[in-house]
Amino acid sequence: MTMTKIDSAFVKAQNEKEAAFLQRDFDALGEKLSRDGIDIEALTKAASDFQIAVPSWGTGTGGTRFARFPGIGEPRNIFEKLEDCAVINELSGCTDSVSPHFPWDKVDDFTELKQRSDSYGLKWVSANSNTFQDQPGQVASFKYGSLSNTEKASRDAAIQHNIDCIQWGEQLGTKSLTIWVGDGSNHPGQQHFQRAFERYLDSAAEIYKALPADWEMHLEHKMFEPAFYSTIIQDWGSNILAAMQLGPKCKSLVDLGHHAPNTNIEMIVARLIQFKKLGGFHFNDSKYGDDDLDSGSIQPYRQFLIFNELVDAAYRKEPEFDPAYMLDQSHNVTDPIESLVNSAIEVQRSYIKALLVNREALYGYQDANDAMMASTELKKGFNTDVSPILAMARYRKGAAISPIPTYRASNYRKNVDKVRPRDPKATGSGII
Amino acid sequence: MTMTKIDSAFVKAQNEKEAAFLQRDFDALGEKLSRDGIDIEALTKAASDFQIAVPSWGTGTGGTRFARFPGIGEPRNIFEKLEDCAVINELSGCTDSVSPHFPWDKVDDFTELKQRSDSYGLKWVSANSNTFQDQPGQVASFKYGSLSNTEKASRDAAIQHNIDCIQWGEQLGTKSLTIWVGDGSNHPGQQHFQRAFERYLDSAAEIYKALPADWEMHLEHKMFEPAFYSTIIQDWGSNILAAMQLGPKCKSLVDLGHHAPNTNIEMIVARLIQFKKLGGFHFNDSKYGDDDLDSGSIQPYRQFLIFNELVDAAYRKEPEFDPAYMLDQSHNVTDPIESLVNSAIEVQRSYIKALLVNREALYGYQDANDAMMASTELKKGFNTDVSPILAMARYRKGAAISPIPTYRASNYRKNVDKVRPRDPKATGSGII
Amino acid sequence: MTMTKIDSAFVKAQNEKEAAFLQRDFDALGEKLSRDGIDIEALTKAASDFQIAVPSWGTGTGGTRFARFPGIGEPRNIFEKLEDCAVINELSGCTDSVSPHFPWDKVDDFTELKQRSDSYGLKWVSANSNTFQDQPGQVASFKYGSLSNTEKASRDAAIQHNIDCIQWGEQLGTKSLTIWVGDGSNHPGQQHFQRAFERYLDSAAEIYKALPADWEMHLEHKMFEPAFYSTIIQDWGSNILAAMQLGPKCKSLVDLGHHAPNTNIEMIVARLIQFKKLGGFHFNDSKYGDDDLDSGSIQPYRQFLIFNELVDAAYRKEPEFDPAYMLDQSHNVTDPIESLVNSAIEVQRSYIKALLVNREALYGYQDANDAMMASTELKKGFNTDVSPILAMARYRKGAAISPIPTYRASNYRKNVDKVRPRDPKATGSGII
Amino acid sequence: MTMTKIDSAFVKAQNEKEAAFLQRDFDALGEKLSRDGIDIEALTKAASDFQIAVPSWGTGTGGTRFARFPGIGEPRNIFEKLEDCAVINELSGCTDSVSPHFPWDKVDDFTELKQRSDSYGLKWVSANSNTFQDQPGQVASFKYGSLSNTEKASRDAAIQHNIDCIQWGEQLGTKSLTIWVGDGSNHPGQQHFQRAFERYLDSAAEIYKALPADWEMHLEHKMFEPAFYSTIIQDWGSNILAAMQLGPKCKSLVDLGHHAPNTNIEMIVARLIQFKKLGGFHFNDSKYGDDDLDSGSIQPYRQFLIFNELVDAAYRKEPEFDPAYMLDQSHNVTDPIESLVNSAIEVQRSYIKALLVNREALYGYQDANDAMMASTELKKGFNTDVSPILAMARYRKGAAISPIPTYRASNYRKNVDKVRPRDPKATGSGII
Repeated sequence: MTMTKIDSAFVKAQNEKEAAFLQRDFDALGEKLSRDGIDIEALTKAASDFQIAVPSWGTGTGGTRFARFPGIGEPRNIFEKLEDCAVINELSGCTDSVSPHFPWDKVDDFTELKQRSDSYGLKWVSANSNTFQDQPGQVASFKYGSLSNTEKASRDAAIQHNIDCIQWGEQLGTKSLTIWVGDGSNHPGQQHFQRAFERYLDSAAEIYKALPADWEMHLEHKMFEPAFYSTIIQDWGSNILAAMQLGPKCKSLVDLGHHAPNTNIEMIVARLIQFKKLGGFHFNDSKYGDDDLDSGSIQPYRQFLIFNELVDAAYRKEPEFDPAYMLDQSHNVTDPIESLVNSAIEVQRSYIKALLVNREALYGYQDANDAMMASTELKKGFNTDVSPILAMARYRKGAAISPIPTYRASNYRKNVDKVRPRDPKATGSGII
Repeated sequence: MTMTKIDSAFVKAQNEKEAAFLQRDFDALGEKLSRDGIDIEALTKAASDFQIAVPSWGTGTGGTRFARFPGIGEPRNIFEKLEDCAVINELSGCTDSVSPHFPWDKVDDFTELKQRSDSYGLKWVSANSNTFQDQPGQVASFKYGSLSNTEKASRDAAIQHNIDCIQWGEQLGTKSLTIWVGDGSNHPGQQHFQRAFERYLDSAAEIYKALPADWEMHLEHKMFEPAFYSTIIQDWGSNILAAMQLGPKCKSLVDLGHHAPNTNIEMIVARLIQFKKLGGFHFNDSKYGDDDLDSGSIQPYRQFLIFNELVDAAYRKEPEFDPAYMLDQSHNVTDPIESLVNSAIEVQRSYIKALLVNREALYGYQDANDAMMASTELKKGFNTDVSPILAMARYRKGAAISPIPTYRASNYRKNVDKVRPRDPKATGSGII
Repeated sequence: MTMTKIDSAFVKAQNEKEAAFLQRDFDALGEKLSRDGIDIEALTKAASDFQIAVPSWGTGTGGTRFARFPGIGEPRNIFEKLEDCAVINELSGCTDSVSPHFPWDKVDDFTELKQRSDSYGLKWVSANSNTFQDQPGQVASFKYGSLSNTEKASRDAAIQHNIDCIQWGEQLGTKSLTIWVGDGSNHPGQQHFQRAFERYLDSAAEIYKALPADWEMHLEHKMFEPAFYSTIIQDWGSNILAAMQLGPKCKSLVDLGHHAPNTNIEMIVARLIQFKKLGGFHFNDSKYGDDDLDSGSIQPYRQFLIFNELVDAAYRKEPEFDPAYMLDQSHNVTDPIESLVNSAIEVQRSYIKALLVNREALYGYQDANDAMMASTELKKGFNTDVSPILAMARYRKGAAISPIPTYRASNYRKNVDKVRPRDPKATGSGII
Repeated sequence: MTMTKIDSAFVKAQNEKEAAFLQRDFDALGEKLSRDGIDIEALTKAASDFQIAVPSWGTGTGGTRFARFPGIGEPRNIFEKLEDCAVINELSGCTDSVSPHFPWDKVDDFTELKQRSDSYGLKWVSANSNTFQDQPGQVASFKYGSLSNTEKASRDAAIQHNIDCIQWGEQLGTKSLTIWVGDGSNHPGQQHFQRAFERYLDSAAEIYKALPADWEMHLEHKMFEPAFYSTIIQDWGSNILAAMQLGPKCKSLVDLGHHAPNTNIEMIVARLIQFKKLGGFHFNDSKYGDDDLDSGSIQPYRQFLIFNELVDAAYRKEPEFDPAYMLDQSHNVTDPIESLVNSAIEVQRSYIKALLVNREALYGYQDANDAMMASTELKKGFNTDVSPILAMARYRKGAAISPIPTYRASNYRKNVDKVRPRDPKATGSGII
């Protein structure tokens, strides 16, 4: 593995300061868990095996329609983004893959890009297409939609772009295409709901045809934004109907911030599992809309309940169950590297906590309608502090016991700032 | 037709006081519409043909978990409810059918009940089952669910009750069964989402088998209440998946108050039409949850936009499109007869306004992405005051030009109060 | 203290089975906390001192407008409710007070009631009035409101009832009156917003005048239900304005389930603290509306964030800060005793976790706009499993280390069921 | 008045094609209204007098964080924006003022700008400050807040900018300053709620001191965006408390899109009127969040109910009641001129409809708790098609009977496109 700009020896030195206490906490937790017949080593291995993809675009500072406030040392291209992703994985030990976004991450020579990621020990997963923006010089605009546009030229451009993404992704080794479109309307009457959805389905079918045999296509639903009256794939209902119509290689992807207020998302996850259409996740957290906040930062118990479904499905050996995990966040006020490291670990935390649940005991409570004990069984897992397990999994693979302090001590951001002069055009002007 | 307790001559006399002004307003509107090539007589016929069912239980005063404040002269049984329904139809001219709820409306002799309704010129539609309450003496409780209960005895009881409802409904001439269950959970972990849904589907399949050849089965989804963490058919997604699995005679029913905040309901209606699964409606209005307020009283434009979809589907001759219309409201602070009359007319109003939309012009705007003209075309229909059309349709069939004033002038409520002594057990104690 | 029907020796015997493991976990946690300079004994004392009131009405099975499914052995009067409350406190060790609801808990001889509660070591706090229901024989109805009714007779009845509550409460030793009214409207136009609020304020001023010198009056806001279009005290804005106008002894009470979707409740708590108007809490949890679920069962992190504000205010020695804590839940599918025990401990858990936050460190991060470290500081407290502290606090005072298992092992519910024959009128009929 | 690029003779010629039909519809409506004792001429005068300000920034195409899709002929500076505003007023007849946004509309010579607006017959109202973006070269950043920033330098910069806005506004003749800040946090713990609000209040007090004697200061609340966990003035509660603390010249401004889901906005309006703190409005419509859609396009009845409160307050001669009306929308898929013309008229429509309500009759129904008649009285006004009144008011003052068709026939947009070459930097790249 190519060295990142944070020397592994530096990480190791930082770790050694904390290793003794970690071992003590790990042992105490191990003893406690063993009373319930739980093997802490098995959990530590599970934590070590767990991996979640980082979105290439998440390494830059995000923003809102009102403004963007750039940070220092922001990556200016996919190679620098990759450099940051390598640091994220070095510290977290659970982000060994990167999800590209096209055309943002398009390069002339994908071989070079692949070699660079290989050198960091990073894989590419889940290619994301972008038909919610017009690119410079684009003739057939997406202003009024892409795959569902009333104009054939725009639909064709959107279809072609997705096919291009597949080809670019193949060069990087990704095995799935994630399609999120902003298509919809802002005015009642603007769009014919049925005809627009039919156009969407027809266009998506063209992309589906271009899928390699071992690829999947993941559709993403979203309630609103950028369209504010209707959105073509507005919820999991439209999503799964589209996926069912398109074929077995098409599945639904769940972004936690894309639902109506109060929605029970874990139940949607269960439904998608049951109907064999859960393709993957975009993890983040939110309080109001698609806030794209750090995973687990607002409703950690909700995230745990989602993993409760995922772990349960794996326990039951549910067929065709192999969802892709990815972060998708907007880091407006934090260092993106810190947020991505932290968020990956918070998702991992939910996973390990969900593994603590005694499935057979839970099924017994459920069968007996013992709501109190059933919910207590979940809460017992959630309330257990699994930090020592997560830290030990990191420590053993050379990642950081305390990622954020280690990162800060490394001065990485300040160091890259010197060699990444800010693009003067990358203003924070906003759009309104 | 048997006379109701409001003499038709009385209605006629009231009407004559207003007939001249009605004619003048009707003519002025007719002239104006004719400029757009719209024939007011065709609209008047459409208004006259429009019918929406009244829920038998809606004739009593509703309440909340906190309290119920009964009114005077409340009907004490299905025969008295029918008496009220006849008055509602006499005044509104657009409610010629009643939807029964079992076991509330169960009688020993359905022939007698059918004769009574026939005498009023009322039909029976959409039998509703009730497995959200335990009936006195019920052994297998629905406390922890009905069709999805973990206990076979409770599931069997729920299945049998629905089959009973079909048989009772057949005696009354209804052609559909509406199933709404409160099944769900209040605690994370209480219920296994997938297994519960599988049990629901298995139970519903048993009911489906018992459906007569010319019947439909309508499933109702609801986000929450009475279950407050999860509900088995929580949204249209679970609803349509169930309906698809159960078979072609099973369709989805939309209650306007059963969705998450901000949901675009008209879009769901369009999706159900597209996938040939729109079974019918429970009309009401709401601001917060399942408020069960009078139809069109809070968001009349939303109701119009729903009818815009319905009229559009009819215009396009969408196959398998024949939804059932029914009111489903809780009248806590008004006279239920007044609210039902008024609500039926408000739904009819949305229908007639939607007929004003120039479909071909709208399609043109949609194809051209002319959001401004498309939304203006809808708004033009909505802004048109079609009251004269609705009133003329009533007048011509002997219903009341001004239903509420006519009803009040008749003293109907006070009159029935004399012969309907209040059940001393019908307190307004509430549950909390 | 009078013995409850669960012998303290039985609790002690149960405890001894777990005491050794508890000590081990307590010691391990203590060692770990000591590294951060945190004294586990101080936390244990804080846990031991923490008390939250139980609502007398919460001891019965709750329900919805659709149905109520009673459990066995339900208390039939305030004496039996008190008997259950004593068990709740015996097990939890943190519920040494009961909040009465009038007229439900009205007795002819309050001296007898006070003696009974004294014998259990229970105090009375926060008298609750009820003007959202009509009592049998009530002449001036609350159907159209109580304190804000357009009819003076109804307003006067509501005022008098609140004054009665004060007098009843004085006999029991409570020092505050909690006023929640269901006043509002279901139809736009039904109520004149300003005039209704003026009537409310005038009526509340009459009650305020009757307050003893050492009493407080707490107003409760609620977005909706039982009124479904508007509610007189619909949010904290109307609440605090009313409290400010009424006087220094009037404060606002926060029920966690009474807010609009997505509301940041902890921020409202902070605002009420800042303006010296935080009177107290009704704790529960919710996912949709006023679901009245067990505290901390849906959004435990939200509950923690509320306690973060409370602990912060105490740390800052914010003047006039002394909120009352009370549970207010509806137990529809669980044994109410279990839910109340568990919920009290979950609230206590949030409190102890909030105490773990290093306030000075947090202030430093806040001043430096270090969002990552600030949120991590909160999460560190939240992620710590403080169960050993809570259990040790219980153990040391003779309460149960494992309350639910101990309760179940005691067979209390089955035992009281034998002497509490079910009221045949207490059906679960529902209201719709 | 300086001629706009749409010749008044052209408007006049367009009008004459429709004048006869308009007169006929106007007469028919006048006759009908006269039966209820309503004078159509008084309503027409009210419509003619009604004016709502146009936001200068609304004349450009809006966007989202994902993209902006520019239209043709967009104004590039305040002078061109003014040119568009003049056309909007020429067509609508009810937008005789413009609200400036600084520093976007800052010019070197305000005298020139004032002369230009005078030449169009346009006034300036409600100066808006901008501290939610950093301007090029800005040293003290607003990334972590403006008026509430922890850094004094940033607070001072924000205060100074607002004082500058007052001075610029004075040169244009505005009499109020509208302050909306995006201050808040994205992470629990990031911000100390109370201290941040105290800093906000201190900073706002500095601005208040700089207010000229005849000016008002209007605070705007917003639930979320751009901050996604907490916002400093998150709702009307914080807003009115701030306004009360700052002084009598400080009032609250209501933007319809800035509330929690399901919020009863008209009730908030009533509360602000009652406490003499309603400063004004930003009109727009929304379905999900701050969607900034065209006024009245989604929930026209809600807009009517707001005007019902406003008309009622005027009828009652409520003291200190003189709110400012302004549009504030984002036009992403329509021609901004068309949307602004249409929206202004839709707001005017709500106003005129609210004038139709018989206040004394309504009060009578309210006093009698006659919910049915009260709501029917409102609905009667709402259902009346007042289009002829609005059109006649326009016609009589030389504005367009049919503004959108007239505008399109004028080819204004295409004409200005020739002289407004697109700024190549004004891309639609979005931020994510």
